[in-house]
Amino acid sequence: MKIILATDSFKGSLTAQQVRSAMKKGIYPVYPNAEIIEIPMADGGEGTIEALVEEQKNWVTVKVHDPLFRLVDAKYGLTDHGKTAVIEMAQASGLPLLKMEEQNPWVTTTFGTGELILDALNKGVRNFIIGIGGSATNDGGKGMLEALGFEFLDRNKNPVPHGAQGLAKVEHLQNANAHPGLKNASFKIACDVDNPFYGPRGATYIYGAQKGANAEMLDRMEKAMIHFAEKIHHFTGIDLRHVKGSGAGGGISGAFFAMLNGALKSGVDIILDHQQFDHHLEGADIVLSGEGKIDHQSVSGKVIDGIAKRCTAKNVPLIVLGGGVMPETQPFDAAGITAVFSIINEPVSLEKAMNPATAAGMITFKTTQVFRLIQQFN
Amino acid sequence: MKIILATDSFKGSLTAQQVRSAMKKGIYPVYPNAEIIEIPMADGGEGTIEALVEEQKNWVTVKVHDPLFRLVDAKYGLTDHGKTAVIEMAQASGLPLLKMEEQNPWVTTTFGTGELILDALNKGVRNFIIGIGGSATNDGGKGMLEALGFEFLDRNKNPVPHGAQGLAKVEHLQNANAHPGLKNASFKIACDVDNPFYGPRGATYIYGAQKGANAEMLDRMEKAMIHFAEKIHHFTGIDLRHVKGSGAGGGISGAFFAMLNGALKSGVDIILDHQQFDHHLEGADIVLSGEGKIDHQSVSGKVIDGIAKRCTAKNVPLIVLGGGVMPETQPFDAAGITAVFSIINEPVSLEKAMNPATAAGMITFKTTQVFRLIQQFN
Repeated sequence: MKIILATDSFKGSLTAQQVRSAMKKGIYPVYPNAEIIEIPMADGGEGTIEALVEEQKNWVTVKVHDPLFRLVDAKYGLTDHGKTAVIEMAQASGLPLLKMEEQNPWVTTTFGTGELILDALNKGVRNFIIGIGGSATNDGGKGMLEALGFEFLDRNKNPVPHGAQGLAKVEHLQNANAHPGLKNASFKIACDVDNPFYGPRGATYIYGAQKGANAEMLDRMEKAMIHFAEKIHHFTGIDLRHVKGSGAGGGISGAFFAMLNGALKSGVDIILDHQQFDHHLEGADIVLSGEGKIDHQSVSGKVIDGIAKRCTAKNVPLIVLGGGVMPETQPFDAAGITAVFSIINEPVSLEKAMNPATAAGMITFKTTQVFRLIQQFN
Repeated sequence: MKIILATDSFKGSLTAQQVRSAMKKGIYPVYPNAEIIEIPMADGGEGTIEALVEEQKNWVTVKVHDPLFRLVDAKYGLTDHGKTAVIEMAQASGLPLLKMEEQNPWVTTTFGTGELILDALNKGVRNFIIGIGGSATNDGGKGMLEALGFEFLDRNKNPVPHGAQGLAKVEHLQNANAHPGLKNASFKIACDVDNPFYGPRGATYIYGAQKGANAEMLDRMEKAMIHFAEKIHHFTGIDLRHVKGSGAGGGISGAFFAMLNGALKSGVDIILDHQQFDHHLEGADIVLSGEGKIDHQSVSGKVIDGIAKRCTAKNVPLIVLGGGVMPETQPFDAAGITAVFSIINEPVSLEKAMNPATAAGMITFKTTQVFRLIQQFN
């Protein structure tokens, strides 16, 4: 019996590693000789570093500039024996770094995200997995590029200001001083939205308000983004207006795509590929996955959906455990999930259910019951 | 795929019939051609009438005497085309019929339970399933026997008083006027305790206090029970001191056993036999059972335990759904249950979980997931 454990964390309760540990404890009483393959999973959003780089000794903490250009500690992770960096832009350029009254996408910058990349480049890292999400910025990735040595100058050849306000003033774009390591660097951008760089469904109008912009600022920012996109178009030949997903992270996706040859892909697919999921799937009898909450979103481009597609392709049964399961059978069936079970055993408060020891015990119990059932019919 | 649905009610939420209906709704999307056998279940306690006699038109309500000899409405059920009566002694002689301050086992009588039997005997019924439990009495079943025509006389050949107080005065026991139908009547007494008629583990000392007796009354009642047992011994040759379970229901079990040739059996076995469970089990692929709460008690002589024993004997997998499941894997495994699943899908209040529509929806969803899993591995 070859079993793959490919589970996300149960957010706020258990790490992915703890979830797998509880699952293993539930499997062994039924299949003591099971071959169990553990594959840390995440969706490219918050928690991706912890998921892909489980050993804290491989986390790197550096001082970088936050969205308002103040120094802040931010971490990234190193994996593949130090060859791949896992970066979440929210660590350096995220909304949680700002107080409510500080939110102002007209000035916030992604410079810090660039500094995280820079630190890894300087260590010799050339493979990057970048999680986009939770950003406080709408600067088209200009700040990130600046940190890497790109120069954005106004008509007087002076550097433009940070943030969206600077985009409107960019007249000259130079890469002469860009980090030389970028030439053979590979960027995979975990990007689960298809919004373009600008336009009615672009970065500004869809995500600007939640970063603190009012209607007047949105219009100003949109004009700045259009201007910046024209400069990029001129420089690279790439028109971000038509690039799906280039509006993610206030347009940082577009910067990666146009300027750094970044691949915009679904987060879960980046991670599944990184973990060589398809290779492990060969000869597997069952895949067991899970996450804190299972609903229709789980089967719309998230971890479970990505796993389900690959399991379906290889005809391997997929069983999903969830802290909370919205009982919408139809989408789960359609997504190719064999069966979904909540770990909850009785009416209980959310607080009690999320207690780590309680949750782990419930996962173990449920896993045992599921595998006893499988054993009976296998 | 032959599937047996043998479930108890989810007390306070769904009847057994509603539980089966929700289960069927969950099975058909997976196995549209399943042969589904429905077997109403109960444990011989409260709710046995509703479980075994699901159609209310087969319920009979009669006026009988309550424990304090006041008229009260009580019901029993008729099944097997009117050939079998299902009676719960609590309907006529139960504690819920008394106010707290009225509880007094020195005087309370089982006469009303006898009247329920009498009514059925007069209708030609000869098979009886009697649920013992929740009684307010400690009269050794004397009242029940009196209602059926037995006579208990003092040394002056006068009838003795109702209740335990009368037992001490019994000198003569006569059956000349007992209902003639009793000669070929068969009584199965659902009795899940092994307490004898008297003694330190007998009816009085184990159950007397919860019926309202104080220490002094307990001693008085015990003497009366010993005296009554001697009279029965003399009359029948049966010494109830040694009969396990004869102390159930304040000793009414002993009266059934000694005077009416009643069989004292576990409630669930009586009901499984009545439902021809073993016959249906032939060729079955799966048994699906359930009850509101699954814990170690469920596998100690209750419905699920009884079903598990028979499924184990015939090697048929048993899957159990519960409203609340105490995750004690060991006893469930040991009892022969293949797998136990709670129907709960997320942290939720008891009140919401017990809402009938919510509970039915959860049962349907869980049943579908379980059968999808079975289908995958079958």
